[in-house]
Amino acid sequence: MHSPGDVQVEDRPDPEIIEPTDAVIKISATCICGSDLWPFRGVEPVDHLAMGHEYVGVVERIGDAVRNVKVGDFVVGSFVTSDNTCEICRAGYQSQCVHAAFVSVESGTQAERARIANADGTLVATPGRPDADLIPSLLAASDVLGTGWFAAVAAEAGPGKTVAVVGDGAVGLMGVLAAEQLGAERIIAMSRHADRQALAREYGATDIVEERGDEGVAKIKELTNGLGAHSVIEAVGTQESMMQAIRATRPGGHIGFVGVSHGVELPGQELFFSGVHLHGGPAPVRRFLPDLVQLIWDRKIDPGKVFDLTLPIERAAEGYRAMDERRAVKVLLTV
Amino acid sequence: MHSPGDVQVEDRPDPEIIEPTDAVIKISATCICGSDLWPFRGVEPVDHLAMGHEYVGVVERIGDAVRNVKVGDFVVGSFVTSDNTCEICRAGYQSQCVHAAFVSVESGTQAERARIANADGTLVATPGRPDADLIPSLLAASDVLGTGWFAAVAAEAGPGKTVAVVGDGAVGLMGVLAAEQLGAERIIAMSRHADRQALAREYGATDIVEERGDEGVAKIKELTNGLGAHSVIEAVGTQESMMQAIRATRPGGHIGFVGVSHGVELPGQELFFSGVHLHGGPAPVRRFLPDLVQLIWDRKIDPGKVFDLTLPIERAAEGYRAMDERRAVKVLLTV
Repeated sequence: MHSPGDVQVEDRPDPEIIEPTDAVIKISATCICGSDLWPFRGVEPVDHLAMGHEYVGVVERIGDAVRNVKVGDFVVGSFVTSDNTCEICRAGYQSQCVHAAFVSVESGTQAERARIANADGTLVATPGRPDADLIPSLLAASDVLGTGWFAAVAAEAGPGKTVAVVGDGAVGLMGVLAAEQLGAERIIAMSRHADRQALAREYGATDIVEERGDEGVAKIKELTNGLGAHSVIEAVGTQESMMQAIRATRPGGHIGFVGVSHGVELPGQELFFSGVHLHGGPAPVRRFLPDLVQLIWDRKIDPGKVFDLTLPIERAAEGYRAMDERRAVKVLLTV
Repeated sequence: MHSPGDVQVEDRPDPEIIEPTDAVIKISATCICGSDLWPFRGVEPVDHLAMGHEYVGVVERIGDAVRNVKVGDFVVGSFVTSDNTCEICRAGYQSQCVHAAFVSVESGTQAERARIANADGTLVATPGRPDADLIPSLLAASDVLGTGWFAAVAAEAGPGKTVAVVGDGAVGLMGVLAAEQLGAERIIAMSRHADRQALAREYGATDIVEERGDEGVAKIKELTNGLGAHSVIEAVGTQESMMQAIRATRPGGHIGFVGVSHGVELPGQELFFSGVHLHGGPAPVRRFLPDLVQLIWDRKIDPGKVFDLTLPIERAAEGYRAMDERRAVKVLLTV
């Protein structure tokens, strides 16, 4: 990405092993993230040329210190690299590892190859070479599924709970899937797009609320005896969506917020009197990856349906435009 | 309180039973809360004449529907009345009960008598008439102890945890006591007052940090391998104290914030990337009261030491001034 709106596919040098803990991966599939649209739209600076942080592929080379993956393994990795051994990682916050680095900054994955630092603590090998139809789902695990799953866990979705999901993008839809898998009793998807509503229902949404802002909040309260949802997943990152999440949650309830905050200022007093639990941030996808890979391998979940447009990587610019214009929920790029 | 700084002790009509669920209590002791200083200082409006929301005393009259307490019982109650039966109460958030009312607004307790709504769901009777030396501790349970305890629970203080406490007022000190009781391994009190440091140590603080703001944060990091505390109790309610709490907490750590927010705006992006858990608000004291009363009754904790000035209620104005000028941590008023 050269500037907002200007995405070009170019020849660049192949990544090399730099640290002995690195791996170089031949990417099989990658995708465009909602967060890639922030620079695309000029909302945040275009601070790196090589885009992309979601990936699945085959290990092509490894550094001398890599032990957990080997050349030829098919792997999925988180969008943040982590050593998976530090105290923060062991507590389950690999995205905040003391050696954390964003893949997008280190080595964009919308490419033929990518260098992944701390390969042992970042990558998870699949049980074997996956069937082609599993690739989209495994790719989803790299970020949107892991992020939606984290949001649902942070929101304490589970049996007996009513979960509301703010945001009907890929992460919100994955939040619906995760809430359903975690056993939530009722899942309210907030969406005004028929196609996304349909996918939300397929993933387990029991109710759809089309209203937004205070009207959306009123609707959630109406559906929950006036109390608000037990659990709210926030998957947008704007002032409006955060306030919608806070106001839709009952006192003592939990919000998992994973939409990257843009221009959000939370009013302290309202947050105080709301009595909610607030937890979020960049999802520690690595915490959930082994389980998610297994669920996909066993065909118990099908997160890959969230990709509604597939393009060869040469046509990446077209994919950005389709997502920007909301003609696609999420674009998969084949490499 | 007639206006900021103007506290007068006046004759007022005795409170009456209004609802059949009410009780009228003959107050034995009451006190001045840090939050009473906000209107005293003119930071928030003086919106009620009759001040006070902390109380212990003897039940003098009950409405026809009251079952759990009887005339003659010595009782402690929360500063928020609750039915203790609604869904929110049953989840442990009695301060957000669907019938919640602030005692301070309904009927100030810096008085000879107070009317307590929803007596059954608000009051807890002691096992018998308490010895005089237990009165301060039981009074503390009504708010500051219950609030500090909630903060420690919200911050998930417990075995193996390093807990930092922002704020050395009564609630902060009670947070130290609670963290110690909950089994925290290390408790860092942030205080620059020798007397409060001493009391913090008595209550279980293992370390004292005198620095504030970013310097205080740096000190906490220095004491925790650069990671930050697992648990942070915020007991002030200002922008500076909230940011200090957020920055002193490690990713994945927990903040219990109980200082009533004044002028706080939390930057969404910093909160997002901090990866902390944030939970707080008006403490559901009623959740903890039965256990706290028992701990006090069995003389296992001595929260009453937080009162370092005792005055007859006629001299209430003097008590406000002493707390305002930080000559006293907390003032007990005998009735």
